[in-house]
Amino acid sequence: MWRATILTLFPEMFPGPLGLSLAGDARARGVWRIETKQIREHGLGRHRAVDDTPAGGGPGMVMRADVLAAAIDAAAPAGDPRPKLLMSPRGRPLTQSRVRELALGPGAIILCARFEGVDERIIDARGLEEVSIGDYILSGGEIAALALMDACVRLLPGVMGEGLSGEVESFEGGLLEYPQYTRPRDFEGRAIPDILLSGDHARIAKWRRERAVALTRARRPDLLARDDN
Amino acid sequence: MWRATILTLFPEMFPGPLGLSLAGDARARGVWRIETKQIREHGLGRHRAVDDTPAGGGPGMVMRADVLAAAIDAAAPAGDPRPKLLMSPRGRPLTQSRVRELALGPGAIILCARFEGVDERIIDARGLEEVSIGDYILSGGEIAALALMDACVRLLPGVMGEGLSGEVESFEGGLLEYPQYTRPRDFEGRAIPDILLSGDHARIAKWRRERAVALTRARRPDLLARDDN
Repeated sequence: MWRATILTLFPEMFPGPLGLSLAGDARARGVWRIETKQIREHGLGRHRAVDDTPAGGGPGMVMRADVLAAAIDAAAPAGDPRPKLLMSPRGRPLTQSRVRELALGPGAIILCARFEGVDERIIDARGLEEVSIGDYILSGGEIAALALMDACVRLLPGVMGEGLSGEVESFEGGLLEYPQYTRPRDFEGRAIPDILLSGDHARIAKWRRERAVALTRARRPDLLARDDN
Repeated sequence: MWRATILTLFPEMFPGPLGLSLAGDARARGVWRIETKQIREHGLGRHRAVDDTPAGGGPGMVMRADVLAAAIDAAAPAGDPRPKLLMSPRGRPLTQSRVRELALGPGAIILCARFEGVDERIIDARGLEEVSIGDYILSGGEIAALALMDACVRLLPGVMGEGLSGEVESFEGGLLEYPQYTRPRDFEGRAIPDILLSGDHARIAKWRRERAVALTRARRPDLLARDDN
């Protein structure tokens, strides 16, 4: 069973959207499991402080390395084979290729930071892998963790209702997905391209491939230069 | 008031994590508002069908243009000034710069697709802006919409508790954030860099800038070449 352990100040955000639909059904069937750990349980003093002011000054608060170390060590005893991820805009951008690797593994331990981030020393000290879901700033790592888990869970065996459809979507072969059409044949004067109604599967496959390449070239030439998708 | 309208098959996924913490507090204070619209209310026939098989064959199901048009038109009457977004891995990658623009505007209408995506014709017919939160595949647009809204809401006036901290984080100036440290001074034999304890604010600012540049050069040279962050 694929297992996610989330370290957070907001355990009530989970499973959230992952309690419904595909991921929720798969969880109910025991395909994967999620557990949350409240970082504050390892906080210091009467107020269970988890953060302090940045060394050198500046706005915001930084999560303490000692508090996070205690939380991580309690959640992931030595020998836990799961990768320890830190959701962070400084991280390596998440790709479908990394998602596939994670989905093939035993699960993930995911640290969700708030405030200005975490004390840098915890990253080295516990071998955290910094993962970014995109080049924008969230209020914390929780929604990023939801995105990562959703991407992984849909690839677990038995999760996708439609069998193959997980494999022929965007990024398959590093390309954006070709345009899709369905009924009605005419929508507000816009027709489905004739070729898709021709029944000629070889030509349709060729057309789709050409459209996917053209779309990727127009919108995301960076993907064509990459080999990690 | 910043206003988000979400078109989805899973309205119960919202506000989800945005009902808590920063975004939840701001919502309770009337800084922003979220409303959900069930696409299935515009579905066809006794089963309220919203999708059909792809023209030209292939796995999965495609959301119908006519159903989506009815849902969009009901949610956003002519004259609604808000941009209409479609969360999609084929879209333009979301950047902090686009987040800022959206946060400065009146809000957003966000279409969350499921299945293999939407009939291509709805995109042109209703002027949808395709937005990608990253190069991985989610089970639907809902978690992507949560990420986009979270990024926007934290920039709304009065939301960030710490005043300035929203402006000095990652991507400010297109750079990844410099490393942060806080107490304790020694953590498992790892010290806070001396310079941060020097009290010399000019040198600290210079060190941080250098670290941010070095980190960005090492991890994300693509950001240094971009001017849209």
